[in-house]
Amino acid sequence: MLKIEHLGIAVKKLQDSVPLFEQLLNTPCYKTEGVESEGVMTAFFQTGDSKIELLEATKPESPIAKFVEKKGEGIHHIAFEVENIEAEMKRLAALGFELLNEVPKNGADNKLVCFLHPKTTNGVLIELCQEKRG
Amino acid sequence: MLKIEHLGIAVKKLQDSVPLFEQLLNTPCYKTEGVESEGVMTAFFQTGDSKIELLEATKPESPIAKFVEKKGEGIHHIAFEVENIEAEMKRLAALGFELLNEVPKNGADNKLVCFLHPKTTNGVLIELCQEKRG
Repeated sequence: MLKIEHLGIAVKKLQDSVPLFEQLLNTPCYKTEGVESEGVMTAFFQTGDSKIELLEATKPESPIAKFVEKKGEGIHHIAFEVENIEAEMKRLAALGFELLNEVPKNGADNKLVCFLHPKTTNGVLIELCQEKRG
Repeated sequence: MLKIEHLGIAVKKLQDSVPLFEQLLNTPCYKTEGVESEGVMTAFFQTGDSKIELLEATKPESPIAKFVEKKGEGIHHIAFEVENIEAEMKRLAALGFELLNEVPKNGADNKLVCFLHPKTTNGVLIELCQEKRG
C-alpha cells in the first residue's frame, strides 16, 4: 500500500455537499465524474497528496443509495494506492482477507480497483486502486 | 487544510487489530500511545504521507466506547493537518461549522487538536490538528 489515494464520503446531494466541502477544505472541487457501473456521480478535492471523493447515488440500487439509507451520510471507504493491484489482491487473499471482486474492475479517475469485505477489515470498507497504464 | 494527517479507526481490541492492520498495510505499527483525557489507547501506522490511527477505549465513558457500542468498529474520524489551528478554527466558525471545543486541546502524537461537529460536515467527524511548536 503506497498511500491513501482517496477517502470516499457518501452524500445525499452533491449540489449541497460540494459547496460545503469547498468551504471546509478551502479548495475548489476540481472534477466531477460519473461511474455508470456503480450508479454514482463523484466529485473530487485535492488535499495534500490524497483526495476526498464525494459520492452521490444516481440510481436506487447503487451501493451508495443503500449505504445512505442504512447509515446516513458519512465516510464510506478508504482507498489505498498500490503499485500492482493483481499482486496485492493475491497477497491479501492469501492472508485471509475477502476480496469483493475476483479481478480488478474499472473505477473513477482512470483507476483499476478492487474492494475488500469490511467483515475481514474491522468494519472498514477498503479499496485498492492502481492507475491504469498505457 | 494541508493534508490528511491521519484517519482514526475505532476498534474493540488493539491486540487483535494491530496484527490485522500490519498484514493489511504491509507495514509495522510504529507507535502506541495513551491519551488519558479521551480514554483511549492508540496505535499508529504510516501510509504515504498520512497515518492510520487505531483507537481502543480504555474506559466505558470514552467516546470510542460509545461509538463502537452504537455503530460497531469502523472509521471514526478524519484528521486534517493545519498550519495554524486557531486561525483555521476562526475561519470555519465564521462559515457556520460547529466546533466541539472552543480552544485547541492536547491530542495524541504531540498535536493540538479541535473537532468539528458531524452535523455540520455531512456526518463526518473532522479533526483539525497542528504540530505543537517550541
